[in-house]
Amino acid sequence: MKKRVAVVGATGIAGQQFLVALRNHPWFEVSLLAASERSAGKRYAEAIRDPKTGARRWWCQEEPPQEALALPVQEASSINLSGIDLVFSAVESEPARELEPLYAKTTPVVSTASAFRYETDVPIFIPGVNLDHVRLIDAQKKNRGWKGFIATQPNCTTIGMAITLKPLFDAFGLKKVFMTSMQGLSGAGRSPGVIGLDILDNIIPFISGEEEKVEKEALKILGVLGEGQIAPADFVVSATCTRAAVMEGHTEAVVASMANPCSVEDARAAMIEFGQEFVKSGLPSAPQHMIIVHDDPFRPQPRLDRDAEDGMATSVGRLRPDRALDNAVKYMLVSHNTKMGAAKGAVLMAEYLHQQNYI
Amino acid sequence: MKKRVAVVGATGIAGQQFLVALRNHPWFEVSLLAASERSAGKRYAEAIRDPKTGARRWWCQEEPPQEALALPVQEASSINLSGIDLVFSAVESEPARELEPLYAKTTPVVSTASAFRYETDVPIFIPGVNLDHVRLIDAQKKNRGWKGFIATQPNCTTIGMAITLKPLFDAFGLKKVFMTSMQGLSGAGRSPGVIGLDILDNIIPFISGEEEKVEKEALKILGVLGEGQIAPADFVVSATCTRAAVMEGHTEAVVASMANPCSVEDARAAMIEFGQEFVKSGLPSAPQHMIIVHDDPFRPQPRLDRDAEDGMATSVGRLRPDRALDNAVKYMLVSHNTKMGAAKGAVLMAEYLHQQNYI
Amino acid sequence: MKKRVAVVGATGIAGQQFLVALRNHPWFEVSLLAASERSAGKRYAEAIRDPKTGARRWWCQEEPPQEALALPVQEASSINLSGIDLVFSAVESEPARELEPLYAKTTPVVSTASAFRYETDVPIFIPGVNLDHVRLIDAQKKNRGWKGFIATQPNCTTIGMAITLKPLFDAFGLKKVFMTSMQGLSGAGRSPGVIGLDILDNIIPFISGEEEKVEKEALKILGVLGEGQIAPADFVVSATCTRAAVMEGHTEAVVASMANPCSVEDARAAMIEFGQEFVKSGLPSAPQHMIIVHDDPFRPQPRLDRDAEDGMATSVGRLRPDRALDNAVKYMLVSHNTKMGAAKGAVLMAEYLHQQNYI
Amino acid sequence: MKKRVAVVGATGIAGQQFLVALRNHPWFEVSLLAASERSAGKRYAEAIRDPKTGARRWWCQEEPPQEALALPVQEASSINLSGIDLVFSAVESEPARELEPLYAKTTPVVSTASAFRYETDVPIFIPGVNLDHVRLIDAQKKNRGWKGFIATQPNCTTIGMAITLKPLFDAFGLKKVFMTSMQGLSGAGRSPGVIGLDILDNIIPFISGEEEKVEKEALKILGVLGEGQIAPADFVVSATCTRAAVMEGHTEAVVASMANPCSVEDARAAMIEFGQEFVKSGLPSAPQHMIIVHDDPFRPQPRLDRDAEDGMATSVGRLRPDRALDNAVKYMLVSHNTKMGAAKGAVLMAEYLHQQNYI
Repeated sequence: MKKRVAVVGATGIAGQQFLVALRNHPWFEVSLLAASERSAGKRYAEAIRDPKTGARRWWCQEEPPQEALALPVQEASSINLSGIDLVFSAVESEPARELEPLYAKTTPVVSTASAFRYETDVPIFIPGVNLDHVRLIDAQKKNRGWKGFIATQPNCTTIGMAITLKPLFDAFGLKKVFMTSMQGLSGAGRSPGVIGLDILDNIIPFISGEEEKVEKEALKILGVLGEGQIAPADFVVSATCTRAAVMEGHTEAVVASMANPCSVEDARAAMIEFGQEFVKSGLPSAPQHMIIVHDDPFRPQPRLDRDAEDGMATSVGRLRPDRALDNAVKYMLVSHNTKMGAAKGAVLMAEYLHQQNYI
Repeated sequence: MKKRVAVVGATGIAGQQFLVALRNHPWFEVSLLAASERSAGKRYAEAIRDPKTGARRWWCQEEPPQEALALPVQEASSINLSGIDLVFSAVESEPARELEPLYAKTTPVVSTASAFRYETDVPIFIPGVNLDHVRLIDAQKKNRGWKGFIATQPNCTTIGMAITLKPLFDAFGLKKVFMTSMQGLSGAGRSPGVIGLDILDNIIPFISGEEEKVEKEALKILGVLGEGQIAPADFVVSATCTRAAVMEGHTEAVVASMANPCSVEDARAAMIEFGQEFVKSGLPSAPQHMIIVHDDPFRPQPRLDRDAEDGMATSVGRLRPDRALDNAVKYMLVSHNTKMGAAKGAVLMAEYLHQQNYI
Repeated sequence: MKKRVAVVGATGIAGQQFLVALRNHPWFEVSLLAASERSAGKRYAEAIRDPKTGARRWWCQEEPPQEALALPVQEASSINLSGIDLVFSAVESEPARELEPLYAKTTPVVSTASAFRYETDVPIFIPGVNLDHVRLIDAQKKNRGWKGFIATQPNCTTIGMAITLKPLFDAFGLKKVFMTSMQGLSGAGRSPGVIGLDILDNIIPFISGEEEKVEKEALKILGVLGEGQIAPADFVVSATCTRAAVMEGHTEAVVASMANPCSVEDARAAMIEFGQEFVKSGLPSAPQHMIIVHDDPFRPQPRLDRDAEDGMATSVGRLRPDRALDNAVKYMLVSHNTKMGAAKGAVLMAEYLHQQNYI
Repeated sequence: MKKRVAVVGATGIAGQQFLVALRNHPWFEVSLLAASERSAGKRYAEAIRDPKTGARRWWCQEEPPQEALALPVQEASSINLSGIDLVFSAVESEPARELEPLYAKTTPVVSTASAFRYETDVPIFIPGVNLDHVRLIDAQKKNRGWKGFIATQPNCTTIGMAITLKPLFDAFGLKKVFMTSMQGLSGAGRSPGVIGLDILDNIIPFISGEEEKVEKEALKILGVLGEGQIAPADFVVSATCTRAAVMEGHTEAVVASMANPCSVEDARAAMIEFGQEFVKSGLPSAPQHMIIVHDDPFRPQPRLDRDAEDGMATSVGRLRPDRALDNAVKYMLVSHNTKMGAAKGAVLMAEYLHQQNYI
């Protein structure tokens, strides 16, 4: 018997990515779609068609699943969750703040929104990195008197950085991290996201709120689960986040200074070995490698590497020493902001929660 | 009486930029054009026309100067410099190594090539930053027994960084600098430079040799002129250089840690005040401001800011504290890699050398 | 004494282009700015600043004129036109339908909106092409009992095509015209215009309503002024309009079949000679050439040619015979959709109307 | 027993696409790789690695087949074809003129080069369109005394147009066709193909030789096989070929005027029905539909539709009447220039030739 899941925010691009990530899923079955009032009451196929031009407002490269097209769309604020085992929340942060607690009263919620990420009793999970924080859910349910819970995914820019820092953190300790991102357009969504006139032949040097999220989330993710809360890891992240004329995939230049000596070869070995146990744990959406390390100095590139292992692996290259800091290495990474960095990463997280009997 | 100047490498894109930078110049008159054997003997208008398709191989936005079109092109290895007061060398590094010493025997050479940048007795000038290194030319002439000399411009990626570091260096001392660049395509030239298939919807994470140049040149430029050589400045630069889908303009994310406390307001003030004396010194190609500081967090952008003051000003924005290092600030900058960063910057340097009677 | 002009829709990108086109204008002085309720009551400098981020919402490459920054912004539906000699209307078509007749009761209106283009007594002007239609204004004023009038500019895609067809039409008669456009992003504006995710690495094959406008407007523009109306020209235009990843400049592939024999050489001569009288008529914004014909087969290109004569000349290339139709030639053209194709073209039109004592 | 095939030009991008198209092929086995002298003698894995930087010079999105990496590369002008059943030739036109006749003496050659396309006794095949021209091979073998033969694929720009014209031609007769293309960068290859500086924010209005190829090839492909030659079809094609900032996929705007009345609905039905027999004939690389017709006016788009049915289907949209010509319709199409338009289309052709016992 598959678990019955709801996708809230189903007509938006993030929701559509959930539908793609859940297509033919062996454990989960999309049983309920919800969106804003405008779409409520229509079948999904109709809800994503522009009434004026007839254009289909579907933005994934993959086709929409047939089953989803026939489902009716419910209004997000008044859905009936009886019989639903899990809610995937793909709404913006503001509505998430209202909606997710409603759902969590009765039902587990896995969310890509930032609304609850920074609450003491809400975990920010990256599969393969800190799923041991799962017990924070118990505290959360108790605190809030919920039958369900809210589990969140980090910002899409945090993910690749945190995945590649984790093996360094574990083996050598981290002191200081500098990260400069060149982020893909899809991270900004379509409402309207980044306007063509603003990004062609250009770099946009600022993404509102992004640097603060990255600097804060990484420490919580690599922190230690204590009594009902996470003690943030004890290092400093300094981030600069920019937008580039790239469709998908976030590229990040990282400098990591460590507590203990770490050669380039050490770092490479730690990254290659990282996550081998996790990827074999039988979760259907897991990649075969958490990190792929390239020796070719021209890799990783977002267009070539974002889709590695269906967007679930983080690609690293240009590993080299940094001479400005102690025990430091530098590298470039590419991670897929809307696969591992959003819906498919959230599905992988849900698979783990299911495996651990939280769903 | 204008000084008579030669442009070597005149048919390439860098040479063309010199012709544009020298159009109607009040002090310099283009009197000799030189290029490779293939163009030698033709008039310039003919040398830049594709014989097969009839297409004009001229790549500046500005039209070619009429006077230049009529000039005959000489072969670079056998030009006659009698009557020439100054050579602008716009050739690649490898031919520069052969050609520039030939010219320097009799004639001052101002070069954008890297061939001689790292020689002990050759200065790397950035106008407005370290023109006081001019006396190294005396040592060079003496050492080498030349009547002329070689004065070089730094790599186009070094320039914006060094210009913005200079006021911080002078006022607060520098300890560590991290710089990540997203460089425009024009920096790679056209032979073939960056292929469209490689850069569309992409970031290229590596530019061969670039990081080493930036890390080394900045220290020499901010160094102190001693007896016949420059003592490099005593800080460390860690650079990551990438290529973005931007026509022109290098965007750089900089973190600067200083010896002494420096608030964001201190840094802003130092940058705004920087170079006020230099820009008033009467050099025809000087900008009105060395550095323009933006408060709008979405600036600087390469498309909007590269042409500030005809590409001769460096635009800075997003000045903010950095908490990972001591006394540190972070900022973004945009500088025009083929104006201040190449030909027009070299012309400005030549103007200073002329003013100081070196030409 | 300069004429006092109002710019309505002043905070939008089209309105901003009017401010740039009118900067230091010898005949016109911007005396009134109007926009929607949201901006009303603020000074212009404040109205174009984002209250949340502090970013300046100004989208022209040129800086905003100082005088404009200090002007207060009035609400478009309740402006006081006493003392105003001319209104430039840069609003969307829907508000134009309400606002322009209000203004025209007392004051001449020059509009880039499509709202009134297809009314029998409203001329669609292209400077240099059909300014002899000016007498339709007399009929319009009489019909409508207005002291002012509405004069419109065509769609930005019509303009380059109509300018290049005009000399062929006059000399050889036109029968059939096929036009395929690859249009720049700026034609779609910024609300939100074309989203980056939709245009990067892509062509959008449809622009709603555009083909119908082009097919209809060209015939009216090349039509003959009769009694109070224009008899449309007697040929057929078949248009396909697409959007390309180009910032500015519309590129069009045209096939023109004529009534009488027309060699490529004939067509070239007609285009080169076209408009020589008009460009000498002393209008401040007129280009020196209406059409520039390139022999280089790789021209015109939008990036290289859109700014020819400050965006006021139309560039033609690849003139060659077409063998599918009788007396036919083919060519490519580039015209600047937001200079000759919008604000600056409208200013040129107003200059003519002023010269003819209509303003 | 699989047929043993050679790929000549294996290190170039077109050759690499053949390797991808032949990966795990049920009928063909790549047994021999050939390239220029520079690569000869190396294993393929080594031949595609840059000796200086270590970068892998492999340009397909798909990974190189493991088997191919281990194969030695032979020199194209001296390969030993004993035991080889078929040669896929992916070289440029000039070497093809020398090499292909050498191979054809003993072995069938399927070529993407243009060298022999216009020879009287050489067929230009598009699978599903004119494979009945296969008997021209008999005449060719007889004429030339070859045991093998040369069968060619058309230019990548011809293919989508010819596929969509074929059902119209068969049902209604064709009189005149106008086609304007916006072609992807991959069609220009990488040596150096289109330079980033030339295509960003731009359209290039000319592709040397392309229009002539399209205008000629379509008539031969839709022609009638007579005695040892093809009588070209009796209609006229007028082409304008341009390059756009698109990675892959050619977009074409087509106007087709027919001998007999053809409504939009007729054209749509003819296209949808087209090729249903062919796609069921059991060829492993055949798509499920030759033509996919979209009703959404914003389709087809190259980024969304080039990969339809793994790049083997042609996508059509915007079917609408054309009023400038008799019995005419207009439409847009997208076809994948390096899948159906190159290697994979050639493999499909070879599958047919094998099925028909020509290989």
